[in-house]
Amino acid sequence: MILIGVFDSPFVRRVAVSLGVLGLPFEHRDWSTGRDAAQIRQYNPLGRVPTLVLDSEEVLFESSVVLDYLDQTVGAARALLPASGIERRQALQLVALATGAADKAVSMVYERVYRPEDKRHAPWLERCTVQIDSALTALEAHCIQRKDHDWLVGERMTQADMTVACCCTFATDAVPFDLAPYPALAARVARYEALPVFQQFHVAFDAPATT
Amino acid sequence: MILIGVFDSPFVRRVAVSLGVLGLPFEHRDWSTGRDAAQIRQYNPLGRVPTLVLDSEEVLFESSVVLDYLDQTVGAARALLPASGIERRQALQLVALATGAADKAVSMVYERVYRPEDKRHAPWLERCTVQIDSALTALEAHCIQRKDHDWLVGERMTQADMTVACCCTFATDAVPFDLAPYPALAARVARYEALPVFQQFHVAFDAPATT
Repeated sequence: MILIGVFDSPFVRRVAVSLGVLGLPFEHRDWSTGRDAAQIRQYNPLGRVPTLVLDSEEVLFESSVVLDYLDQTVGAARALLPASGIERRQALQLVALATGAADKAVSMVYERVYRPEDKRHAPWLERCTVQIDSALTALEAHCIQRKDHDWLVGERMTQADMTVACCCTFATDAVPFDLAPYPALAARVARYEALPVFQQFHVAFDAPATT
Repeated sequence: MILIGVFDSPFVRRVAVSLGVLGLPFEHRDWSTGRDAAQIRQYNPLGRVPTLVLDSEEVLFESSVVLDYLDQTVGAARALLPASGIERRQALQLVALATGAADKAVSMVYERVYRPEDKRHAPWLERCTVQIDSALTALEAHCIQRKDHDWLVGERMTQADMTVACCCTFATDAVPFDLAPYPALAARVARYEALPVFQQFHVAFDAPATT
């Protein structure tokens, strides 16, 4: 299968890290949503990444849809989201907090990338900042509560761990956002980012070129 | 349980319609992400809707997370997403196309709501329009292919039907977007919207007040 999208997107990266953790091989096309929008739209009408092209030529997009497919492929015992119950809900809520913060971080980057300076609007950036701060505060509280546990949910790595790390790293690389006010979260993200599978799929943030 | 959010959000509405289809009773708080942001943040740090408060006081948010919970609650036989395989992937892809278009429609509304006129940027609105048009074109192609079937996937109503209807109606109500170039999609959305459960949870679009 072929994964389309640059690893500096937290949504592409959480798919790449998941593929790595699950040991599923893939080809990579590092097409940018700015520069390569037309090429991406040949596979995904929305022009968004990640887009995953299966060997059958079936195309999947939206990172949550791709991750659902990967979990179904490997089966419940190896799936990165718990199959049901409170652990599934907890993992999904952490994912929602992290991806929600990343959405707002993307909005802040888009403000720079897709607008001339006189069209940028400080109150909008402030609104996004408040939302990101609130999400990080909630993640910090969860990390403090889980300080004696290696992973955010249960006793093994789940999608919550991967998504929280990818989204926080994106916010710090791209906005840039400072994790210092969230020390338990920052320490956990640093620990995850030191793992080989996270390093393998990290690239320096490069704002999308619009031409 | 308590559903927070106004039904003029496609994401709140697809949850409300799903609750209605599944026959699950709920209380409703029609709090707006603009006017009632602080109140919403007491339940959801991101200040986003839909937010679902369970009787146990557990809080769920992101519509896909809430819908996953509802499907788990009613069990596989009644779940609104097929449990596995090609039908699940098809339903999720249609949902991704529809919610992707709705995301961009929300961006277009936000441009009006959260910015003074001199901070709005026509090329950004044009970019969103292209993405919505491309998603609707893909949905139209699927509707043409499914013209002899009552539902978009398989032979019963799935989350794809509900989400496509809610997202298309939002785009036409709020941007406003014209579905006339997509006649098979327009006819199908009109047919779904005539169903009592869709009418029950429809309100006229009212742009969020920011104060």
